[in-house]
Amino acid sequence: MSTQSIILVLDLTGVFAFALDGALTGVRTARVDLVGVTVLGVTTALGGGIIRDLLLGQTPATFQDWRYIVVALAGATLAFFLSSQLQHLATPIQLFDAAGLSLFAVIGATKAIEVGFGPLQAVLLGTITGVGGGTIRDVLLNRIPVVLSANSRLYAIPALLGAGVVVLFDTIGLGSIWFAVAGALLCYCVRVLSLYFRWNAPPPPGAPPA
Amino acid sequence: MSTQSIILVLDLTGVFAFALDGALTGVRTARVDLVGVTVLGVTTALGGGIIRDLLLGQTPATFQDWRYIVVALAGATLAFFLSSQLQHLATPIQLFDAAGLSLFAVIGATKAIEVGFGPLQAVLLGTITGVGGGTIRDVLLNRIPVVLSANSRLYAIPALLGAGVVVLFDTIGLGSIWFAVAGALLCYCVRVLSLYFRWNAPPPPGAPPA
Amino acid sequence: MSTQSIILVLDLTGVFAFALDGALTGVRTARVDLVGVTVLGVTTALGGGIIRDLLLGQTPATFQDWRYIVVALAGATLAFFLSSQLQHLATPIQLFDAAGLSLFAVIGATKAIEVGFGPLQAVLLGTITGVGGGTIRDVLLNRIPVVLSANSRLYAIPALLGAGVVVLFDTIGLGSIWFAVAGALLCYCVRVLSLYFRWNAPPPPGAPPA
Repeated sequence: MSTQSIILVLDLTGVFAFALDGALTGVRTARVDLVGVTVLGVTTALGGGIIRDLLLGQTPATFQDWRYIVVALAGATLAFFLSSQLQHLATPIQLFDAAGLSLFAVIGATKAIEVGFGPLQAVLLGTITGVGGGTIRDVLLNRIPVVLSANSRLYAIPALLGAGVVVLFDTIGLGSIWFAVAGALLCYCVRVLSLYFRWNAPPPPGAPPA
Repeated sequence: MSTQSIILVLDLTGVFAFALDGALTGVRTARVDLVGVTVLGVTTALGGGIIRDLLLGQTPATFQDWRYIVVALAGATLAFFLSSQLQHLATPIQLFDAAGLSLFAVIGATKAIEVGFGPLQAVLLGTITGVGGGTIRDVLLNRIPVVLSANSRLYAIPALLGAGVVVLFDTIGLGSIWFAVAGALLCYCVRVLSLYFRWNAPPPPGAPPA
Repeated sequence: MSTQSIILVLDLTGVFAFALDGALTGVRTARVDLVGVTVLGVTTALGGGIIRDLLLGQTPATFQDWRYIVVALAGATLAFFLSSQLQHLATPIQLFDAAGLSLFAVIGATKAIEVGFGPLQAVLLGTITGVGGGTIRDVLLNRIPVVLSANSRLYAIPALLGAGVVVLFDTIGLGSIWFAVAGALLCYCVRVLSLYFRWNAPPPPGAPPA
């Protein structure tokens, strides 16, 4: 399997995870119908990648390859029918979200390096790609995005670490798609551990205790 | 009249309708002054087309042709002075919004086909163009966008149908600007009928009744 | 110092001012931790310029030059540690915001002229660049953007004036970076005076008094 094929598989897996995440979050937090669930799933799934490609100066992959739209629609539709089983379960939503975050962060960083962005810029672009879909989801649902909220545990940090692994190994001359996989696993584990152990970043000095 | 001229006229008509829609919605739902009304009208009017052109990889038409800005400003200014007559009337706002939705959906699909996007992608781009302006309007007004809300009747579906007509006839080799006009009329009628007859998409299985 | 160097210095100064503004606003209005403060500062600082460059059809300066990211991070980090001194003081936040607004408005207009946009389009792009960062900040904080709110005094108008000065002097053949500096000073003064003297734009005719 070529590197491009592996990136495509990882990217589509992220799209699917974010489609489930966005659609289930819609069912759980707002009064949405079939159309609303689908719109939210598709937007969450495709939003991060579209932002990534616009910032890279490329036609979004979503519009070049029909499989992105089909996978996003499949995830959103599946979530619609599963929602009565899953809607009270916050955990599956968080795991799907962590998967999308991880995969998109490392693919964003990988594509930024391919285009010739510097290391700092590649880490930023990977982080934006990772947190982008969930941020659009939360803005559309009219709530403060997970990436900002102090009650959401670590979210930008895992994405930064995942993108950072990709960029670090590329910078020292060991660029390989397998470091993207390793970065995604690191991001996923840090995100899930932060949820489980309730890790938070420090509050501003002088802020009242939570 | 050439096809390009017809597209321009339809596009500017959509801009004008969305400018009225955005500005009047601002007066109706928030405490906004002349500047706020104008900003909201112009943003609603130009937002969908700007998103469309960025996704197509083009310089937004708004910045290539001064008439877009002038038409948007004219619509917003007119709405400001008409608002005391119209602000309690939800119906004109909904009709302006339906007009903008319809025109932008078919123009988005038409431009996507011109650029060489596949059928599925062209339908998605048309739908995004149609619902984009109203979604920006609602995000700025800090409320859940019409495209997501189960109480807003059908909104993405008519845009999808309008864009779908354009793409269908192009795919079978009958591409013509008149199918864009037909698609816009279909979108407009379905949207208005859904408002009148209170059509909604089905809720998620197991969701509590409305 | 070349014109390009002056533009870079002004741009980075705007980034720094908006990073302080966004980060301090986060501390003041939401429950955010170190990560949330940083994300909000960086997003406010870099958002306007990224929108500007996307609309100009260019790779965002943020991703071409690492100094943008470093300056944004420095401003956000500084704000985090200063926040216990500054968080109850609305005035510094408003002055940083006015500085970012002014600098970004004139740089946006300058870059639009360089790319060959018409006068009206250059004024619009400058205004969008000026108000963009603060609008993203407010959308992420789930509140109605300053640019729309009637209680926020003049905000889009000063940006429009600043961008207008740049475009006016360029149109009459006197283009010079010093008119950008003059435009920024005009924008800054009008914004600050409108805060001090509580200037507002007129409400819609027939609207109830404030």
